[in-house]
Amino acid sequence: MHIAMAITQPDSLGGWRREVSRAAEFSSLDYWVEIAQVAERGKLDALFIADAPVLELPSRPRQAPKLEPIGLLSALAARTSRIGLVGTSSTTYNEPYTLARQFATLDHLSNGRAGWNIVTSFLGTRNYGVPLAAQPDRYARAEEFIEVATALWDSIADDALLVDKASGIYTDVTKVHPINHSGGYFNVEGPLDVSRSPQGRPVLVQAGASATGRDFAARYAEVIFSAAPNISSAQEFYGDMRRRIAAAGRDPGQVKLLPGCSTFIGSTEEEACRIRDEAVSLMDVDYGLIGLQEELGGVDLSGLDLDEPIPVDRLPEDTSALVARQSRPQLFKELALTPGYTLRRMIETHLSHNGHWNLVGSPEQIADSLQEWFTNEACDGIMLVPAHTPDGIEIFVDEVVPILQRRGLFRMEYKGNSLRDHLGLQRPDMQRRDGRS
Amino acid sequence: MHIAMAITQPDSLGGWRREVSRAAEFSSLDYWVEIAQVAERGKLDALFIADAPVLELPSRPRQAPKLEPIGLLSALAARTSRIGLVGTSSTTYNEPYTLARQFATLDHLSNGRAGWNIVTSFLGTRNYGVPLAAQPDRYARAEEFIEVATALWDSIADDALLVDKASGIYTDVTKVHPINHSGGYFNVEGPLDVSRSPQGRPVLVQAGASATGRDFAARYAEVIFSAAPNISSAQEFYGDMRRRIAAAGRDPGQVKLLPGCSTFIGSTEEEACRIRDEAVSLMDVDYGLIGLQEELGGVDLSGLDLDEPIPVDRLPEDTSALVARQSRPQLFKELALTPGYTLRRMIETHLSHNGHWNLVGSPEQIADSLQEWFTNEACDGIMLVPAHTPDGIEIFVDEVVPILQRRGLFRMEYKGNSLRDHLGLQRPDMQRRDGRS
Repeated sequence: MHIAMAITQPDSLGGWRREVSRAAEFSSLDYWVEIAQVAERGKLDALFIADAPVLELPSRPRQAPKLEPIGLLSALAARTSRIGLVGTSSTTYNEPYTLARQFATLDHLSNGRAGWNIVTSFLGTRNYGVPLAAQPDRYARAEEFIEVATALWDSIADDALLVDKASGIYTDVTKVHPINHSGGYFNVEGPLDVSRSPQGRPVLVQAGASATGRDFAARYAEVIFSAAPNISSAQEFYGDMRRRIAAAGRDPGQVKLLPGCSTFIGSTEEEACRIRDEAVSLMDVDYGLIGLQEELGGVDLSGLDLDEPIPVDRLPEDTSALVARQSRPQLFKELALTPGYTLRRMIETHLSHNGHWNLVGSPEQIADSLQEWFTNEACDGIMLVPAHTPDGIEIFVDEVVPILQRRGLFRMEYKGNSLRDHLGLQRPDMQRRDGRS
Repeated sequence: MHIAMAITQPDSLGGWRREVSRAAEFSSLDYWVEIAQVAERGKLDALFIADAPVLELPSRPRQAPKLEPIGLLSALAARTSRIGLVGTSSTTYNEPYTLARQFATLDHLSNGRAGWNIVTSFLGTRNYGVPLAAQPDRYARAEEFIEVATALWDSIADDALLVDKASGIYTDVTKVHPINHSGGYFNVEGPLDVSRSPQGRPVLVQAGASATGRDFAARYAEVIFSAAPNISSAQEFYGDMRRRIAAAGRDPGQVKLLPGCSTFIGSTEEEACRIRDEAVSLMDVDYGLIGLQEELGGVDLSGLDLDEPIPVDRLPEDTSALVARQSRPQLFKELALTPGYTLRRMIETHLSHNGHWNLVGSPEQIADSLQEWFTNEACDGIMLVPAHTPDGIEIFVDEVVPILQRRGLFRMEYKGNSLRDHLGLQRPDMQRRDGRS
């Protein structure tokens, strides 16, 4: 079973207002190093940092500044030794040459622990002076972007660097190849100016959940993050993705599916509920309403009774016609139509776990749920999203992980050095593509 | 006196072939951490990493891969505590929003030690699918780029983050301002998604030496790197720049001029010469010739006698008409016309110190020369370019620095925490620019 942990900046819900929260330290390296070292103590596969190049996320109008992920992960590479380091970077606002050298560098600095979470970004246009392209265009650009980046990562052979002092030959230039890519979005001659990195390429991570996103992930992703509110929806996704991966001519065993799992953990179930209730009581309903409207694809929920269900005519009609995102509005629409979901509960759901699988309980209960999903083809592990930090991270590592270890579900020690080792992914062979796109 | 140290990847000349060289470790973080910690032991102001997003530099056809500077410096921030960290990043191939968040993040991670070496890049077009713009256009873009980046760094006030658990107010939104920039090259709404960093903004560094470059540096730079082969040329530059800085309405005391200084240092002058001679004997003349042709603006030097001066008709006629660079070809042209400079000596000059001030001698002799320049208005310090590593770095720190300290020319201990503290530069006030470009 694989466990990656998302570290969000800052806590969702009212979590940052809890006494133990250290939200004021979110721009301090020492804080992140502590978190990373706790996760490494728990032998987790990887840390994951989400990102969008914009301050005011629609779902987070609190305007919480953050740190840029590549820099932060590079710093964490220098203070950790085994845990994987996965950063989000957009194919819409970057150039492939720049991104390829950044991630190759991160892979060198971390000695093979880099992962790239590929996003096509529906946020950020305002800071790059470009209008938001429709989803198919963003995916077409992303596809070409990945092809170029992959070719760049393969442009210097593993054995090209001789650094032979006697002969004076530094690089065997017969093993260095330009890529000469000329395409619809990019013209890149190459080769990359960073040598082939320990993992060959960073681990490719993706989270698209729309039909286009699923096909894209099936073709490129080695780790797939997803959001599934319950086991049946996770099983549907798991089965569907494995079929799509096989249809794309790839080995489904070489792609790991990790649904998000938001957790409130206490020593007892009672304590877990108390933490959850405290976080809920500290939440800002107005702020949550703004975010929920956005998650539903930009609907207007003003003037509604918090303790009644959302009227059907306020929900989006056809989520597949939305430009920015499609899967999350669909997920929330289904939730809104579920009996018992009042507007208030919808806001709580959005703020506390945003549609992810949500667990509230003791370490034993959390471990039981994880085991149930893992042994019933709902996942290959989880993307842990602790809803309360740093205590929710510590209790997971110190109390949930040992249970999973005792049950033989999770590693006792890291077996290898690289993120690919942790995930059981092969190091990719080099593909020559010089001379043509 | 201020001392920054350039760490080049890999050594120039035949230096990498010397027994002590560790050129094979250039992609390893541990190697860089060692170098950085030695420099910090010597209380140097800053480390500096040059960069161009391309593998095969015309002057370095050996195809030596490297690491991307922002990632490398972020990792070094996590393993050092006082030394400044200056990285090169291009205004031609980047977007200001991306660069602004990277350097603000580096400044946070390092607790105020970030510097940005602004380059307009005459290299790299092949990897970004854009033709090389003429120098005036590159500077016009750079100017707007800096205006946007500066506005972004100032877009969140120092006291905007309240993180007030009691009231639930995370950010005082009245102290966060979009920049609404709309210009010839960029449209950026802002605000930045990284809070104002310890130094307010990274220290701005520039190295332009053409007339356009000098005016640009006079308007924006806080540290100016330059190349001067001798004291009179350094004094000319020092006087000229101070005049230009004052003419631009700025305080010349708030701009530090650091000419490059390439060093071969031995325990005795004899040993220093031996190291220089060994490095020269290991150099690759063919490789040096290719580089020299490029440094002269793309001339053809094939078929010439190595032990004769370069014929005048092979030198560039009008260096100010060159598209890529102007100052370096002019410097080399002047050198080629100097009596005693054979083609071989020109190649050696290019390879060993590339037109920079070159010192060969014992620690005492090096210190004497530095003192002469510093006390005669030729510089505010130096950009050290050790021509042999790692021994040339260690001997500078362990034997030259103590002499400068005894003479009262260099700090015994760091006085402050930030790069601005080391350089004696004020922390910039915030400038409001919202609402207009």
